[in-house]
Amino acid sequence: MGDDTVRNHSFINKAFPFIAISLKGISQVVLIENVVSGAIILLAITIASVPLGIIALLSSMIGTMIGKLGGVDDEILNQGLFGYNSVLTGMALLLFLTGPTQWILCLVGAAIAAILTASVMHIMKGTGIPILTLPFILLTWFALLVSYRLTTFQISNSLVPQSLRQWELDITGDIELSHGIFYGIGQVYFLDNMVSGILLFIAVFWASWKLGLYASIGNAAALVTALILGAERSLIFLGLYGYNAILTCIAVALVFNMDKRPFSYASGIMAACLTVPLAASINTWLLPYGLPALTMPFVLSTWVFLSARKILPKL
Amino acid sequence: MGDDTVRNHSFINKAFPFIAISLKGISQVVLIENVVSGAIILLAITIASVPLGIIALLSSMIGTMIGKLGGVDDEILNQGLFGYNSVLTGMALLLFLTGPTQWILCLVGAAIAAILTASVMHIMKGTGIPILTLPFILLTWFALLVSYRLTTFQISNSLVPQSLRQWELDITGDIELSHGIFYGIGQVYFLDNMVSGILLFIAVFWASWKLGLYASIGNAAALVTALILGAERSLIFLGLYGYNAILTCIAVALVFNMDKRPFSYASGIMAACLTVPLAASINTWLLPYGLPALTMPFVLSTWVFLSARKILPKL
Amino acid sequence: MGDDTVRNHSFINKAFPFIAISLKGISQVVLIENVVSGAIILLAITIASVPLGIIALLSSMIGTMIGKLGGVDDEILNQGLFGYNSVLTGMALLLFLTGPTQWILCLVGAAIAAILTASVMHIMKGTGIPILTLPFILLTWFALLVSYRLTTFQISNSLVPQSLRQWELDITGDIELSHGIFYGIGQVYFLDNMVSGILLFIAVFWASWKLGLYASIGNAAALVTALILGAERSLIFLGLYGYNAILTCIAVALVFNMDKRPFSYASGIMAACLTVPLAASINTWLLPYGLPALTMPFVLSTWVFLSARKILPKL
Repeated sequence: MGDDTVRNHSFINKAFPFIAISLKGISQVVLIENVVSGAIILLAITIASVPLGIIALLSSMIGTMIGKLGGVDDEILNQGLFGYNSVLTGMALLLFLTGPTQWILCLVGAAIAAILTASVMHIMKGTGIPILTLPFILLTWFALLVSYRLTTFQISNSLVPQSLRQWELDITGDIELSHGIFYGIGQVYFLDNMVSGILLFIAVFWASWKLGLYASIGNAAALVTALILGAERSLIFLGLYGYNAILTCIAVALVFNMDKRPFSYASGIMAACLTVPLAASINTWLLPYGLPALTMPFVLSTWVFLSARKILPKL
Repeated sequence: MGDDTVRNHSFINKAFPFIAISLKGISQVVLIENVVSGAIILLAITIASVPLGIIALLSSMIGTMIGKLGGVDDEILNQGLFGYNSVLTGMALLLFLTGPTQWILCLVGAAIAAILTASVMHIMKGTGIPILTLPFILLTWFALLVSYRLTTFQISNSLVPQSLRQWELDITGDIELSHGIFYGIGQVYFLDNMVSGILLFIAVFWASWKLGLYASIGNAAALVTALILGAERSLIFLGLYGYNAILTCIAVALVFNMDKRPFSYASGIMAACLTVPLAASINTWLLPYGLPALTMPFVLSTWVFLSARKILPKL
Repeated sequence: MGDDTVRNHSFINKAFPFIAISLKGISQVVLIENVVSGAIILLAITIASVPLGIIALLSSMIGTMIGKLGGVDDEILNQGLFGYNSVLTGMALLLFLTGPTQWILCLVGAAIAAILTASVMHIMKGTGIPILTLPFILLTWFALLVSYRLTTFQISNSLVPQSLRQWELDITGDIELSHGIFYGIGQVYFLDNMVSGILLFIAVFWASWKLGLYASIGNAAALVTALILGAERSLIFLGLYGYNAILTCIAVALVFNMDKRPFSYASGIMAACLTVPLAASINTWLLPYGLPALTMPFVLSTWVFLSARKILPKL
């Protein structure tokens, strides 16, 4: 490639910031802006599933590119804020759709997620509340429902609509604490894999020990709350009651807690606990449609506490 | 208790304003800020059911305390505006949940209602429209749906999910006018008791004869509308088409009608009539989930008219 | 009538602007403010069905009158912006309700549509996004659900609630291109009639050749997208995947595209394509209630792109 070295070098110079932003996009899913954390998370995903790792990186790149082409403010773009909703959307569609057109739908979904990110940013601007993962949630729900009407969208048969009248609750099951701990953080990225869970904790602690601490506290709070309130143990120890609590605890106690507030530590834990009944409720609400709750419990609990703080400043 | 009198007196001095605000919280359910009215209403509730009376007072106190601890503006707190959503939430959960943990859930629910009140206040601030009872409605719906997933939440077997396809309408029944009149206002506090209904009217008239008049007109408008449109008589004469109309008529024609408007009297009555089809529609929408409409028809009808007035100033 | 000529003349003077605004109300359904286009559209509707034509004109007059009586700003009123939601509501209720009281309900519905128009205008003012046909959609859905609870509301038996579990998709059918083209624009006004479709195209081209061009492109984009994604051919060639795309393409590429943007043409077509999966998704979501999607895909797709533009200025 001899005479191409200079152009190649310049290409790398241009490409690297783009890769860096895309990795930040992956880390922003756990509210972290850190290239190294993003790379560790990408490794954690790829260990669990290579296709998921590929789609995570591609989706983040697509989201970032849409933001760039659309002319978004550089400050927003460089934080990776146009990547994380695309990452989650691409991964969710790869998991919940099947069929030959699945990859195309995932990548188009990642692109639309970036546009929807911009929409929700604008609509919520007046409230001073962050958009979190709402664009991903809305878009994924919408895409999964499409499958009942368009043949190219083929929904995974793990998602079955059920009638609330025929629903029976069976909470029995074994207590598997290590699963509860490491699957909880894994489920943020749809993973139930021990090594991935450990890597994810490393990624979070790498960004800051405080973030790691609050993530652990949030997960523990959710485990205890879910056990006390009587949730299905099969779900608890798959981490399905934990991931929303981890995100919520980080968001309420740390990331969106600029001012020193007397009860901010307590309100972070309270918000984490609240995700447990919220997850239960949202799952019930979605039962007739066979849709997963995704990170909606995190979004609602965090919004409730962040907006309440504007009126109750000590919270 | 001899030597404690001074401390006791100071305790009462401190305690009484708190009790007064809590009673205002009870009266704010019918959009009234009046300690005596609140006390009469508490009596009306207690006559119908002692546990309901206890939970109403406790919930109002908890809501007010959360507002105080959270550092809300005193002017808002002293009007009882952090009490009424807690009162309704506590009462609704006592009625619609069962089981040994019910009381704890009611009191925790009352606390969360106060936090949600702050959230909704902040989010709706830009619109200039009052939050009314939205926090109570959302929280109660959410809590009742939880019961399908967490064993500590046990839903009353009066709430059964039904399929819209199997739904059959039977509107026959006797006309019982006195029930229609006094159960209507009673249902604002979930009561179908003649004496309680009379006491509630006294409480409203005590605050102002105008409020009492508009409450009566709103109820009458709803009774006539429901009969003409062909609603189920069993529901009409339980007051289940009346309570939303009472609240709406008071809100649109009186409480949130600062400026003199040419049609405000007529629009109050129109808004009251609109709650009848709204209640029918919301009940249909909630049928697959087995949830009650609560005061959602009041909230929607009032919002429609109050926000329309900002564009149609004569309304 | 001899001596009445002067008064009659003055009556006509007063009456004509009112008729003109009402015709503009009819044309505003396709985002056009043009009296002649409105008259041609009214003809197109009347050719398909005389009762529909009558209700369209009456509804527009009622909506405009409510705006006038309510004291709305003349500039808004004169553009026909208080007519179009009433037109669609009146027509939809005539089509989807039956029974002796149907006409009264249509006219009352048209009046409430105007009040709801004002409400939604106020609530969305802060976002800088147009309300489009949201008031019509919400009001029609609400009115159709009422039929399960109030006997005077009798729903057409074409609208049947279905369970998602029993839903089977059959996309086979013939390709009827001419239907796809002319029924698409017809369905904006609930029409599947060739002559009406041709007249509607004439009405749009009369207002501006650019509008006509974008309407055609939007429709073509939706036809191709629906065929590629595998939609039911019976619906495609009834125009049921086309009307939302037509409205969206006009709105995003032309009517609400004040500034020159690099990708506005492309984003208009992308928004039109997006209405196809949106329509599929919304129809699935409404299946348990047996409700039609109406123009909700248009509203959502247009909102997504118009609000995204505030953050992504090149879109």
